[in-house]
Amino acid sequence: MNGAEVLLESARERGVEVCFANPGTTEMPLVAALDRVRMRAVLGLFEGVCTGAADGYGRMAERPAATLLHLGPGLANGLANLHNARRAGSPVVNWIGDHASWHLAADAPLTSDIAALAGSVGWVRSVASAGTIARDGADAIAAAEGPPPGIATLIVPVDAQWSEAERPERPHARSARAPTAGAALERAASLLRAGRAGILLGGRALRAPALHAAARIHAHTRCPVWTETFAARHERGAGLPDFPRLPYFPEQARETLSGVGGLVLAGARNPVAFFGYPGQPSRLEPEACALTTLCGAHDDAAAALEALAEALGAERSAALAERARPLPASGALDVAALGRTLAALQPESAIVVDEAATSGLPWAGFAAGAPPHTVLGLTGGAIGQGLPCAVGAALACPGRRVIAFQADGSGLYTLQALWTMARESLDVTIVVCANRAYRILQVELARAGVAEPGPAARSLTQLGPPVVDWVAAARAFGVPGQRVTTADALADALRASLAEPGPGLVEVVLGP
Amino acid sequence: MNGAEVLLESARERGVEVCFANPGTTEMPLVAALDRVRMRAVLGLFEGVCTGAADGYGRMAERPAATLLHLGPGLANGLANLHNARRAGSPVVNWIGDHASWHLAADAPLTSDIAALAGSVGWVRSVASAGTIARDGADAIAAAEGPPPGIATLIVPVDAQWSEAERPERPHARSARAPTAGAALERAASLLRAGRAGILLGGRALRAPALHAAARIHAHTRCPVWTETFAARHERGAGLPDFPRLPYFPEQARETLSGVGGLVLAGARNPVAFFGYPGQPSRLEPEACALTTLCGAHDDAAAALEALAEALGAERSAALAERARPLPASGALDVAALGRTLAALQPESAIVVDEAATSGLPWAGFAAGAPPHTVLGLTGGAIGQGLPCAVGAALACPGRRVIAFQADGSGLYTLQALWTMARESLDVTIVVCANRAYRILQVELARAGVAEPGPAARSLTQLGPPVVDWVAAARAFGVPGQRVTTADALADALRASLAEPGPGLVEVVLGP
Repeated sequence: MNGAEVLLESARERGVEVCFANPGTTEMPLVAALDRVRMRAVLGLFEGVCTGAADGYGRMAERPAATLLHLGPGLANGLANLHNARRAGSPVVNWIGDHASWHLAADAPLTSDIAALAGSVGWVRSVASAGTIARDGADAIAAAEGPPPGIATLIVPVDAQWSEAERPERPHARSARAPTAGAALERAASLLRAGRAGILLGGRALRAPALHAAARIHAHTRCPVWTETFAARHERGAGLPDFPRLPYFPEQARETLSGVGGLVLAGARNPVAFFGYPGQPSRLEPEACALTTLCGAHDDAAAALEALAEALGAERSAALAERARPLPASGALDVAALGRTLAALQPESAIVVDEAATSGLPWAGFAAGAPPHTVLGLTGGAIGQGLPCAVGAALACPGRRVIAFQADGSGLYTLQALWTMARESLDVTIVVCANRAYRILQVELARAGVAEPGPAARSLTQLGPPVVDWVAAARAFGVPGQRVTTADALADALRASLAEPGPGLVEVVLGP
Repeated sequence: MNGAEVLLESARERGVEVCFANPGTTEMPLVAALDRVRMRAVLGLFEGVCTGAADGYGRMAERPAATLLHLGPGLANGLANLHNARRAGSPVVNWIGDHASWHLAADAPLTSDIAALAGSVGWVRSVASAGTIARDGADAIAAAEGPPPGIATLIVPVDAQWSEAERPERPHARSARAPTAGAALERAASLLRAGRAGILLGGRALRAPALHAAARIHAHTRCPVWTETFAARHERGAGLPDFPRLPYFPEQARETLSGVGGLVLAGARNPVAFFGYPGQPSRLEPEACALTTLCGAHDDAAAALEALAEALGAERSAALAERARPLPASGALDVAALGRTLAALQPESAIVVDEAATSGLPWAGFAAGAPPHTVLGLTGGAIGQGLPCAVGAALACPGRRVIAFQADGSGLYTLQALWTMARESLDVTIVVCANRAYRILQVELARAGVAEPGPAARSLTQLGPPVVDWVAAARAFGVPGQRVTTADALADALRASLAEPGPGLVEVVLGP
């Protein structure tokens, strides 16, 4: 076996089943080896599609997919979505082909500092020779799996791929999630017993068992419970406790938290402002507020919250408020009608990839009454995550409908993902919120005191003219599409796409 | 004036007239300042469009354009084309907004190591405060201008943008190009006098005056003259000396150079293989070949070559071989018919951005007989450079027709550039070579010994199914398009687009 085959066989044995790839000349032995070890290869027409797909796959499958990218520029093209994946705590393994080891000194045109790029998102190692490729490959997967999970990049010189190598060692058993320490439990319990304390849920505390435990604590203590603003994966809908989300803008978030004297962090990190504004602090909790961490994002949050409920003497279960499912809207189309209609029609166990930005806010409210579903959010703020993430989620969960709820400006960053959806016949309904602006930036301009933007500022925050024709873009990539301008047409188009296997796009016109 | 205004006014005074931008919240004061200093702002729907456009602009204008990008992920999205710009020796200034200085410690979602990314392509500095922003901005432009020109990244915390700042200093005069040292001249002359030596032209030696000087030397000494394989900017066509290009594949390049005992590098670096292959060395010249550098890529190559011609006692001028312009092809459409037809119809002083990859090879031969034109090549091997580079070239040279001669796989990396062409009404004719494959990778698979690729390898090197509909993609972004399947239809479509102001796309079907 050559190094490429050893690397891939070892990865297969460790549970890596899918490789999102856009390879080049320095990855050819790995490309050939994909067939020999029968690993599924999924082509992205741009590397940001591959890395975003690996993020979505990792969030849903809870094991790493691999990416196969070409040298430094290929990795660079995938970095923004690796940044999001890092913030999501997704396990991802990147295999980056490199020049033959002896060829690096020639400083050929494609040579660049791959390790510097990879180091900005996590673990990185360069394979020294085929002799170490089995161990290096296993270490990369272990680094990606964690705990905590993260991004691991293995740089694989092409001569290490084509040279003979030793067969890989068998994998070891994975370590279990760490139990919550008694001291952390005791600190959280006393904060909540003292009153005026709240709980902030994040990470694995946004799954069903942990949400039920949090509801149990809430019913007993009446303490406020919030969810983090941008969650990697959040289980929501009928039958699940629903808590308000911490607001995005820092002054609103500080107002929300203004009454608390203590905050228990369950899977969430300490809350900070997304951006710094003049005269506003970075931290969002009041100055005198005590913070304590019950469990980290990747710990067993359900067990930690159940233990906390026990310690507080809470009843075994809490009654859930009845939440009605909304009916589809009718008439004019705005973000409220969009949110209501989508929540009314989204099927049970849908995976909603939410990169709808400002257009998605009403939906989040309505969807609390929708059937149980999973929401994947934009964790790192690097736009262009939604469509690729939907690709990966659909591959990880073939039986579930994926809804890519997508802002237009963000979607244009990585619209090539549509092609992969078509090629792989993925059950993805793409709902494009076509407000034809970077709306959040128009808001931010106003917040920065620019009441009447000049022509340059306007041109940099408007997506037209020309208006982007998303139906044509979908057709370009082999995805059927439809444009809607009324709520009724939206409902019809959604019903049709949700009933149809494979991808379909609905352009929802919300702007000029 | 606030820091943002000082930074931009200083840049205007130093000749920066255009800013290719995709800003975010941490760039809002700079966005507002663009209007106040009346700098031209050009929106790209993806940062790779902005950086590739700055590269194209820099190659043609020979002064930097700026990019304005959002934090680490925005820079990451632009890195691949900055890599190409670095290899091209293009002057580019990047302004990257950063979090407010006090907010960095909060490790907010969009925080990442911007300096590590920027350092991979060149000069980088972070503005410490508004008090130094004038000096930092001037230093960044000076670093971009060189000599040698290159990529300079200034990280600008948003609080340095919004705080009051001192007005900028007036710019100093720029330094002149270094004259060629007498010793270098003497070494080159003696190599050529000794016989069996050749000249490799690159950089500024591919402009008209230097090409004429090289022709004068060639006529006198009969020494072989080659041009570098991937040139940033190459003046070609009728009335200009034309020399063979050094082949891409290393065994062909080594065969080409096999007879030479010495090689004079005029604006070119020492020739190396693009990739390392088993058993093949990195360097392309014979082992016993003496290399000597007459002048660097950015030196005054015309003066250096004229001085060399003088030293060798060459006649004042050399007769040029007559080269006939080809006639458009008729009938079936293949890469030869495409090359012939494009060369037959491209207008005088066209700027041809050549990212046609394997589909462009015949054109390069035919175009030697076309009217004088400028070719901008893919210098760094990071695909997705062509369409953005065409945007920048068109903005730098409003009176000249730009032809984006574009491979389909590469073009799909940054197809969002089409929208900027439409918005800015740029005179760009996009010729898409739709072979519907990563053809070069199919060749490389075969070179790697994979005679019959398996399904994974096939799927990673074919761009269909589904076939990408480029006419629909153009329509999506507001560019009129047409698909052609015969040489005659190609000629008609080219004539029509070249006569029409604004952008137009021709999809040339060359594959299944």
